[in-house]
Amino acid sequence: MTRLLPALFLLIAGLARADEGMWTFNDFPSNLVNARYGFSPSQEWLTKVQLSAARIAGGCSASFVSPTGLVMTNHHCVRDCAQQLSTAQNDYIVKGFYAASAPQERQCPAMEVNKLLRITDVTNVLTKATQGKEGAAFRDAQRAEIARLEKECATAPDIRCDVVNLYQGGMYNLYQYQRFQDVRLVFAPEEAIAFFGGDPDNFEFPRYDYDVAFVRVYQDGKPAKVDPWLRWSAKGAQPGELTFVAGHPGGTSRLLTVAQLLYQRDYALPERLFQLAQLRGLLDEFQQRGPEFTRISNSLKFSVDNSYKALVGRREALVDRDFFSKKVAEEQKLRDWVKADPERQKRYGQAWDHIARATDTLRAMRIRLRLLEQGAGAGSDLFVYARLLARSADELSKPNEQRLKEFADARKPEVEQQLLSPAPVYPKLEEALVTFYLTKLREQLGPDAPVVKRVLGTQSPQALARKVVSGSRLASPQVRRQLYQGGPEAIRASKDPMLELVRTLDGEARAVRERFEEEVESVIDQNGELIARARFEAYGTSTYPDATFTLRLSFGQVKGYSEEGKTVEPITRLAGLYERATGEDPFRLPPSWLRAKPRVDLQTPFDFASSNDIIGGNSGSPIFNKDAEIVGVVFDGNRRSLGGDFGFDEASNRTVSVHSEGILEGLRKVYNARRLLEELGRGGGG
Amino acid sequence: MTRLLPALFLLIAGLARADEGMWTFNDFPSNLVNARYGFSPSQEWLTKVQLSAARIAGGCSASFVSPTGLVMTNHHCVRDCAQQLSTAQNDYIVKGFYAASAPQERQCPAMEVNKLLRITDVTNVLTKATQGKEGAAFRDAQRAEIARLEKECATAPDIRCDVVNLYQGGMYNLYQYQRFQDVRLVFAPEEAIAFFGGDPDNFEFPRYDYDVAFVRVYQDGKPAKVDPWLRWSAKGAQPGELTFVAGHPGGTSRLLTVAQLLYQRDYALPERLFQLAQLRGLLDEFQQRGPEFTRISNSLKFSVDNSYKALVGRREALVDRDFFSKKVAEEQKLRDWVKADPERQKRYGQAWDHIARATDTLRAMRIRLRLLEQGAGAGSDLFVYARLLARSADELSKPNEQRLKEFADARKPEVEQQLLSPAPVYPKLEEALVTFYLTKLREQLGPDAPVVKRVLGTQSPQALARKVVSGSRLASPQVRRQLYQGGPEAIRASKDPMLELVRTLDGEARAVRERFEEEVESVIDQNGELIARARFEAYGTSTYPDATFTLRLSFGQVKGYSEEGKTVEPITRLAGLYERATGEDPFRLPPSWLRAKPRVDLQTPFDFASSNDIIGGNSGSPIFNKDAEIVGVVFDGNRRSLGGDFGFDEASNRTVSVHSEGILEGLRKVYNARRLLEELGRGGGG
Repeated sequence: MTRLLPALFLLIAGLARADEGMWTFNDFPSNLVNARYGFSPSQEWLTKVQLSAARIAGGCSASFVSPTGLVMTNHHCVRDCAQQLSTAQNDYIVKGFYAASAPQERQCPAMEVNKLLRITDVTNVLTKATQGKEGAAFRDAQRAEIARLEKECATAPDIRCDVVNLYQGGMYNLYQYQRFQDVRLVFAPEEAIAFFGGDPDNFEFPRYDYDVAFVRVYQDGKPAKVDPWLRWSAKGAQPGELTFVAGHPGGTSRLLTVAQLLYQRDYALPERLFQLAQLRGLLDEFQQRGPEFTRISNSLKFSVDNSYKALVGRREALVDRDFFSKKVAEEQKLRDWVKADPERQKRYGQAWDHIARATDTLRAMRIRLRLLEQGAGAGSDLFVYARLLARSADELSKPNEQRLKEFADARKPEVEQQLLSPAPVYPKLEEALVTFYLTKLREQLGPDAPVVKRVLGTQSPQALARKVVSGSRLASPQVRRQLYQGGPEAIRASKDPMLELVRTLDGEARAVRERFEEEVESVIDQNGELIARARFEAYGTSTYPDATFTLRLSFGQVKGYSEEGKTVEPITRLAGLYERATGEDPFRLPPSWLRAKPRVDLQTPFDFASSNDIIGGNSGSPIFNKDAEIVGVVFDGNRRSLGGDFGFDEASNRTVSVHSEGILEGLRKVYNARRLLEELGRGGGG
Repeated sequence: MTRLLPALFLLIAGLARADEGMWTFNDFPSNLVNARYGFSPSQEWLTKVQLSAARIAGGCSASFVSPTGLVMTNHHCVRDCAQQLSTAQNDYIVKGFYAASAPQERQCPAMEVNKLLRITDVTNVLTKATQGKEGAAFRDAQRAEIARLEKECATAPDIRCDVVNLYQGGMYNLYQYQRFQDVRLVFAPEEAIAFFGGDPDNFEFPRYDYDVAFVRVYQDGKPAKVDPWLRWSAKGAQPGELTFVAGHPGGTSRLLTVAQLLYQRDYALPERLFQLAQLRGLLDEFQQRGPEFTRISNSLKFSVDNSYKALVGRREALVDRDFFSKKVAEEQKLRDWVKADPERQKRYGQAWDHIARATDTLRAMRIRLRLLEQGAGAGSDLFVYARLLARSADELSKPNEQRLKEFADARKPEVEQQLLSPAPVYPKLEEALVTFYLTKLREQLGPDAPVVKRVLGTQSPQALARKVVSGSRLASPQVRRQLYQGGPEAIRASKDPMLELVRTLDGEARAVRERFEEEVESVIDQNGELIARARFEAYGTSTYPDATFTLRLSFGQVKGYSEEGKTVEPITRLAGLYERATGEDPFRLPPSWLRAKPRVDLQTPFDFASSNDIIGGNSGSPIFNKDAEIVGVVFDGNRRSLGGDFGFDEASNRTVSVHSEGILEGLRKVYNARRLLEELGRGGGG
């Protein structure tokens, strides 16, 4: 599997050491696992695991846990769904949700579950298509070839295909998924227990959260039949036990060049944190206006708080001078190796400098790129709908291979699901977000920038936000459907003020995106590919690619760690949960758990830490033993895992999961969720 | 004046070049000004300017502009006073304030004006007192000697004395001031014109602000007689004219070592910005709750927005790789020079490493230091009052030279003025700030930190904030006076909940402060002193010390600059103001200026840029010509001046002032402020 060149042995030592790695299923180092843990996953085992894992579009992982489409994930992965199904009178975030019978299962307005069917290597096809091209030509050729490949692969509406760029351009794989768009909520606990400890305990360990939920995928209005699926283990995770995590880590930056890391350290991360910090302050105070303000903004607040803390940890890793020096040394080693051979130097030698220059270009355009394109709208749903409509009017008239990539034929189902989602829109929150966005636009581009003048005219950001939000009819899915089905003419004829706002921005937004794709992204892809090849030549695929929100497998063991001289045990128990409860948010237990206290076994394992290498996007991943039996559900990493974006430190980087025994104890003693227990094969008492 | 060693000429080139420098009055480079501008300030001229300049305690500069105590400064320097004198019904921030007759002048609740009388060099005294001492012993000896010197100097209640540490410990000067504590508001325009363009235009140029205000100092209930004072120039600032600024730059960091700059870049600045960004979001949303919420929080919002933008600019300078490399090269040059001579190497060679280690220590304690001591309370007035009371109970019982430095006898008047200020306290805002503070305390120290547990118990930050704010009686100046006059026993007996909160924190707060003073501050002082001596030995006092909120003189000229290839003219005119007005905040003119439009001369100069080297704290400084005549009032720097914290770039770093002719045109045509015009010698029509 690994193509090691013996002469380079010294270079390799210290690379994929330890429990590090978010490995692809088509290049899993079974021999390495065997060497460390005496178990070598077979191809059959790997296939079973791959097909039992699931992805939740938008950012989570999950697993199939019954033959009738039952899917286990985290509460925080179904949080949006639970909020969207709630009303001011009936708040499932507060009360939890349990469908005691099949008809009570409720469809999530905007959830899609994917199951990975097949991985095909298309590196050669893409390399051929872009050979000898640069800048815009490279980008166009690549985009056209990807659109073609994906369209050819997506043979039915419920098949989703993505070309995935691995190793920073070193390898392209075509991932084919089965797509489930009818997803129904089965069980979600109260948020007070799912996210017990709230933001203060987030990314910390020891931990006491019941962050688990179940949904079911349907086909043709009936529970989908799935095979294979993962069974429950007899006892759950044991200290020292070998554990695997199959899930979808969203993204890592371990292969970035030093120039790119500097950009992350000095610009990308701090500036995103400034923005998130301000949004945190805004949301905290927004919630002070009343309980309904809290309810409608809680999902956003959760995600903002969560991203904030995650990025703080990531930034801290990069400002750590020892850590950064290691990155510099690693790059230097590879560059020296390239330089040692004139032929290699000719092929790869310039790649780092080209990337450094592209990063300089990015730095110069970053503010416009963020405000006009990547972060435009600052989270407003209406803005997203308006942009999808405005752009679909332009893009869908073009040939498939010339469109912006998110409008390629193969991506149509996602566009439509997103655009036509029945999820409620909250005008007060929209107004606050659009005000925030327009204020930032003026603040960062300056009041004299032509685009700012065109957008605001003589209005204040707040007045304009109020006008476009209160005047827009796009909150209604019917209105959006009519416009979308009316096609370009209907959309262009619409005078909806949010659509008009988006149209005013769109020329410059597209222009900056185009420049980014031509002068930054394509240069980084092309030269990243060269560096990746140099790395392959030096190390083989004994390294794993950076995470890309595609299915990966990591191995490790149930294991504590030391922190500031103290030993942290790997498993927490229910007794600790009750000790930690103060009665005040976010340490307030819901009534169900308080009532159940006399019944539960306080020695039941609740959460646990393991040395698996994961990152954001892995939330909801199954964690299982060598017999592919569930021992828990991953929901977090500890604080030291946050630097995992840039590198894995086995000494203290830990995955945090809800223990399978804790899950069962809750379903039995707190929720009396018999139907669910039976489906999990745990109906009978013990 | 300068003690140049000829052999070092190459080293010196490029040091205090150009218009750079915030020079002390006892070491002003008149010869340099003469070489560049053909004018050599005499000692008499310098003395006159020194005695005509004024400082506003808390962070601004000002000047005496009439023999009867009239003081000119910025609107934003009297903003707190105007807000404190306002009520919901009568808002001087919105309507402006003008005392058409003497009895209408209104006393500012918490303003102190200082006039610098004398500077004495006490370096030798202090060096002798601390000789051979380190850590705690060094700190104690230094503290005791400073308390003694200040007490000896402060011969009357209206004399204020500060020992000032210059050149990072290379020189200690004793500054003796006359103190005016009865300060009355004479004129403040509407904020809509004083801060026209708001945050978007802040730190930008071209600019159109009427950021000027007048107060008067009183003695024994009557206008104070002052001499000397600055007259008005005939025509105001002309393009190319030599200009001086006498004011109190708050602080610069141009002499920091590379280790200290790294700490600023990676920790101090970004983390302060995260905090400020969150506070910005909180305040923006707080203001959405209604006009009264806006009124009571506007002063704080102004200062938060202003600091935020300033620190963003400062951070940008440090992440600029060229800029940082220069700093590294400068340090290396001096270190190489030290190393070249074994004797020098022995004396100075270790200093940089000692500072680097102290900076590491600071990094490890920074979060506790910020939360428990330096940033404790997050701006809550009640918290400040409670801490002043609690600490005065402990400190005032100790001998003068053993107290925390802010409680030394010589500082008592400031403590009392601050503590007994009649400024209103706004409970809603207090509650929001204390909630923010307690939330940050828990977030950053973690819910399991003993001090967090002691403070919060089982309460949420918000519940505790509400309790201590609503339960505290410290909003009343009478209550505070009673407690203060009751002495330690009365204070210790008080069960005021805000006092109890402060007491719960105080043990750990004092402990971290003590560790900081012993292990960080004293090491940096001591080794900074060594580096400063090395620098003197190499360059003489041809360099100026970093700013320390003490009186400095800078020179320059009225001068535009280029930005992104475009030429920016140095002077704006009233016509531009009216063109920029959109009718919407923050580009909405107040009614007075709209009404006056037909009367004003649109060609009148309004604001202008000059190459003087200033920084925050210089707000309100007089800017004057070589005849010591006022040509304007400094109120801002352009965006490129923000990096001035770390270094001056003559090409684009600019001071921004209101033009003296613009000031007069407003007083005449908009405000018809005859009494004021007469006092300025401009009563007669033209």
